[in-house]
Amino acid sequence: MSLAVAQADASAGVDVATEMAAIGKAARTAARRLAYATTKEKNLALRAMAKAIRRNSPAILAENALDVADAREAGVVESFIDRLTLDPKRVEAMAVGIDEIAALPDPVGTVLAEWDRPNGLHIERVRTPLGVIGIIYESRPNVTADAGALCIKAGNAAILRGGSDSFRSSTAINQCLTEGLVAGGLPEAAIQIVPTRDREAVGEMLTGLSGTIDVIVPRGGRSLVERVQKEARVPVFAHLEGVCHIYVDRAADLAMAKTIAVNAKMRRVGVCGAAETLLVDKAVAGTHLEPIVEALKKAGCAIRGDEATRALVTDVAPATEADWSTEYLDAIISVKVVDGLDAAIEHIDRYGSHHTDAIITDDQSAAGRFFARVDSAIVLHNASTQFADGGEFGMGAEIGIATGKMHARGPVGVEQLTSFKYRVHGTGQIRP
Amino acid sequence: MSLAVAQADASAGVDVATEMAAIGKAARTAARRLAYATTKEKNLALRAMAKAIRRNSPAILAENALDVADAREAGVVESFIDRLTLDPKRVEAMAVGIDEIAALPDPVGTVLAEWDRPNGLHIERVRTPLGVIGIIYESRPNVTADAGALCIKAGNAAILRGGSDSFRSSTAINQCLTEGLVAGGLPEAAIQIVPTRDREAVGEMLTGLSGTIDVIVPRGGRSLVERVQKEARVPVFAHLEGVCHIYVDRAADLAMAKTIAVNAKMRRVGVCGAAETLLVDKAVAGTHLEPIVEALKKAGCAIRGDEATRALVTDVAPATEADWSTEYLDAIISVKVVDGLDAAIEHIDRYGSHHTDAIITDDQSAAGRFFARVDSAIVLHNASTQFADGGEFGMGAEIGIATGKMHARGPVGVEQLTSFKYRVHGTGQIRP
Repeated sequence: MSLAVAQADASAGVDVATEMAAIGKAARTAARRLAYATTKEKNLALRAMAKAIRRNSPAILAENALDVADAREAGVVESFIDRLTLDPKRVEAMAVGIDEIAALPDPVGTVLAEWDRPNGLHIERVRTPLGVIGIIYESRPNVTADAGALCIKAGNAAILRGGSDSFRSSTAINQCLTEGLVAGGLPEAAIQIVPTRDREAVGEMLTGLSGTIDVIVPRGGRSLVERVQKEARVPVFAHLEGVCHIYVDRAADLAMAKTIAVNAKMRRVGVCGAAETLLVDKAVAGTHLEPIVEALKKAGCAIRGDEATRALVTDVAPATEADWSTEYLDAIISVKVVDGLDAAIEHIDRYGSHHTDAIITDDQSAAGRFFARVDSAIVLHNASTQFADGGEFGMGAEIGIATGKMHARGPVGVEQLTSFKYRVHGTGQIRP
Repeated sequence: MSLAVAQADASAGVDVATEMAAIGKAARTAARRLAYATTKEKNLALRAMAKAIRRNSPAILAENALDVADAREAGVVESFIDRLTLDPKRVEAMAVGIDEIAALPDPVGTVLAEWDRPNGLHIERVRTPLGVIGIIYESRPNVTADAGALCIKAGNAAILRGGSDSFRSSTAINQCLTEGLVAGGLPEAAIQIVPTRDREAVGEMLTGLSGTIDVIVPRGGRSLVERVQKEARVPVFAHLEGVCHIYVDRAADLAMAKTIAVNAKMRRVGVCGAAETLLVDKAVAGTHLEPIVEALKKAGCAIRGDEATRALVTDVAPATEADWSTEYLDAIISVKVVDGLDAAIEHIDRYGSHHTDAIITDDQSAAGRFFARVDSAIVLHNASTQFADGGEFGMGAEIGIATGKMHARGPVGVEQLTSFKYRVHGTGQIRP
């Protein structure tokens, strides 16, 4: 495998545009075949992918070790190394993930709606694949397996461009995916990884490769998202950061608020559904603020508060304007006292990222107002923001949580990777 | 009104970017209010708009006469003049159209799906407005009323930029829409028309006005669509041309094929659902081709055929390569003999615009294969392509037929102008 990688690297930069155009063309051809692949064909391919990953686990780990060694030498941070590193358990988890995707219902062909017209026409709205999906992600090798498998299940071709630090790992994983495709009688080009570490390749993908890419799914940090927003000429499933809020309303149960706030912030601090800001209704700041903040502190969380918060609780660092729109992804929370529900809604609208926001209250009408006016992909009442997850929603595997409002919003699973068409059944009808 | 128009014109070009940014900001603020407007408020506003249009019909017609006079002086073609010209009947039709939109069910708040999780969470997927919709269209004054009303019904703010030749007419119509908004207690800025004829304004809209436009709906000919594809930095509901096909299969009933082909081509030649190419299965070319082509000729249609067609029917001009991808919007059809169903599907894939395509056959399995493999927004079996219309689908008024696969596909009516969010109802759940 290393040899192939070295060759790909050597040829990189020669003419990335030509190379990427060829990838796009091959993906488009594969997508046409995928579009009418049967459920059986797709699942056969997926199960064969999982098997190939299990069988080739030592080879994948060997390639991954080279990636990790290079990354260490380059001096990247430990959290980066952690995301990059595979072990036998993580490889097995990839295989299990693909088997789970095989077990999901096939979205393609599902009749979403059907009705009859007075002239006898029978109209169906039916799920179809989207076409070719370009996925740009960071150095997390497992995304190669997850994203490739999700695309296949939904009948799409995938062009995958992972972080260059995981290039060898992704290539090794992709060889297993290819093996599965062949076993299922599907075209090899249905999943391609971009065979160059050149950043120019990302630019080419963002132009849509002459109309061969239907949608781009960016998975990454702020710099990737900003680049995508600046350069993309094709539709994008926006995945912005998760600046998620917990609003403790005047009618909140204190014990529930405490438990949820701690869970929403501290269960896992590095996920996009982790809470970053706690808003507390002025009306209950005197009773609720201190116990909640102390519970967070006890759980190991650093607190940055506004003046009102600092007046009520000790050991709180001052929050700056930047804090309100910061996704810490760390054991830090910003805390603010707000003048009631509408002030909370206004704060979330101004500083949030339209990802996931929760209200804690026993007042149904307050919850209703929050639900109607907070313009986020996911709004919760009396539950932790950490439920922002396709699996937790019962939707199966996901590529991420979309924060845009076009096409996909919230967890992006197999159904969100589809489009639809209208099938009209007639018996000779003409339009008068 | 003319005075206001003159002033707007005079100020145009001074600083279009600043002016457009202000429009975007006002639209965003209006959209936040619209997002939770009640059905009653929206319908009150819509009915008041219809009333205002009826009451101001003379003023609208006077402004329109000025537009028409200028256009005539500029020497535009008659079909352009026809689309531009209003008369009392057309003004009344606009008012009726808005009343019909008021009568449609409110899509916002509809629960699209709901389910319970084992942990007791109740999850709903609920329709929400999209936000701010930018609509760029040609000099058809009625689109101002239709598009504005559809956006309001779906809870969106609209920024409308019609063709500059209809500027006075659109301004007069928009004053009626504004009157309706005020009567309904909704913000005036919920519908704005771009107050400049400067083409730079279109460019500003295509950049998204600093994130204030959520989606662009272009309605127009090839040059507009090409500009949008080249410049758009925001999501677009693609409305390409309709290069629609009728495929007469070997198992087609001749009489039905004849009737449908004539209707699909000739009922109205200027609509996007009009057929532009007739494909005939080689197996029945000897029996079916001539009668169908003669029926088209009799209906006044000019024929451009491939060699096989010209060998079978007299008075057929030769079709060039360009003909296969041409949207004539005229009494012209291209005709080709194909080697069976798969060749027809391949032709449609290569030359079509993924809009609307029909198969005529008594063979259900052929129809099934056509439905599965033709990647168009609308596929029909034994029915005319001219049914490609939101009204004919029972969906009410529409802005157009989207040919893209993202978010909206096929007729774009009120439902397609919405997004959705997830509402999660808990009782204190935290994630383990």
